[in-house]
Amino acid sequence: MTHTLILLRHGESVWNAKNLFTGWVDVPLSDQGREEAARGGEQLRDAGLAPDVLHTSLLRRAITTASIALDVADRHWIPVRRSWRLNERHYGDLQGKDKKQTLEEYGEEQFMLWRRSFDTPPPPISSDNEYSQAGLPQYADLGDELPQTECLKDVIARFLPYWESAIVPDLQAGHTVLVAAHGNSLRALVKHLDGISDDDIAGLNIPTGMPLVYELDESLAPTVPGGRYLDPDAAAAAAAAVANQGR
Amino acid sequence: MTHTLILLRHGESVWNAKNLFTGWVDVPLSDQGREEAARGGEQLRDAGLAPDVLHTSLLRRAITTASIALDVADRHWIPVRRSWRLNERHYGDLQGKDKKQTLEEYGEEQFMLWRRSFDTPPPPISSDNEYSQAGLPQYADLGDELPQTECLKDVIARFLPYWESAIVPDLQAGHTVLVAAHGNSLRALVKHLDGISDDDIAGLNIPTGMPLVYELDESLAPTVPGGRYLDPDAAAAAAAAVANQGR
Repeated sequence: MTHTLILLRHGESVWNAKNLFTGWVDVPLSDQGREEAARGGEQLRDAGLAPDVLHTSLLRRAITTASIALDVADRHWIPVRRSWRLNERHYGDLQGKDKKQTLEEYGEEQFMLWRRSFDTPPPPISSDNEYSQAGLPQYADLGDELPQTECLKDVIARFLPYWESAIVPDLQAGHTVLVAAHGNSLRALVKHLDGISDDDIAGLNIPTGMPLVYELDESLAPTVPGGRYLDPDAAAAAAAAVANQGR
Repeated sequence: MTHTLILLRHGESVWNAKNLFTGWVDVPLSDQGREEAARGGEQLRDAGLAPDVLHTSLLRRAITTASIALDVADRHWIPVRRSWRLNERHYGDLQGKDKKQTLEEYGEEQFMLWRRSFDTPPPPISSDNEYSQAGLPQYADLGDELPQTECLKDVIARFLPYWESAIVPDLQAGHTVLVAAHGNSLRALVKHLDGISDDDIAGLNIPTGMPLVYELDESLAPTVPGGRYLDPDAAAAAAAAVANQGR
């Protein structure tokens, strides 16, 4: 018996459209992002994939993407679980900054280090920065665990406990699980599933709004490494576009 | 210490707009319904009311209303629980029928009996009716409990176990609870809270998209009978309009 896990990165947000670093800033989807979410739902529906349970981050761009996609797929009524552990990588002091300006100001090497280094986080955000999450009620329980910045290694460290304690039990109960999340929390998951090295994960980009389906064997190893996109050609084109962000 | 319970009837659906009996048919909100939901969220936000947990039915008009309202109120990230026990009254064989035509065909007395009698359900729906819910995956667990028609008494009977087992524990845990549901499942709740008689409940109409706030004492009795609408004048006007549906 295999387990079905579906990953869905949120559609374009209003800050993706403006080319700003977003991280934990809770911006809404753009109109294009809402359309992407609906197309993602159509892909699920047309493929006959029926999620039994949804896991989302606490950020509205993932929450809304899942709501729209599941409504289109007639699965709006399934149970929902949410966790900050599925949030996007915290971009520290870069949150709210223009990607192109940051590239010009700091240069290609530093820019790519912040964007794609496995273990070098951007400078931390201060709690009086307007884009800090300090004091928000949805993170009140985190206390000192509230990130001030994160690298991908940090995301993996806070994501994996949720994978083990919340998502794996749903898979083992036989549920088809949809995870609606973010570029970096999903990269953390894919790295774990496919055993991708710390170096190679830098080259992996997950397109927005396109369901990525993993069939997992009893040990939760992918039966097909890398999973499969329901529309592979569109996914490949979109992933290439993500890789060129900030140019 | 008091407990805060907020009731929210979904905004106008596309079948409300067409004046059709809806019941368990899973129709979406109209554009006006989406606007009502957003205004409901603004009322919550402006009143400083912050739901900690959401309970919804399995029907998309309630689910979407809650999603929109909570997003506007910046509470999109709260936990969600869903149950068929919060669904609208099942309208039996009337589902999908025009209210005005039904009034003309069966006459005022029969029409009002079906709409407002406490214990007389409409004729049951047959499982081959296109508006039957037999076979839908979200109700697969119900088996013989799947209603073929319901009167308000039936709604109360299936709603109260959920009130006791799911909503009351959230209130007793100190959570501010939002219940996003339907005209008749909310009437069942209000009847229970305010101790309204079987006869008098017929005259109670709950307007769409307007948060109705109950403060409950330790024995879960309302501190103010009937609760309070955040915009009382608009609520009174809307309730009067509901009473005149089908005319």
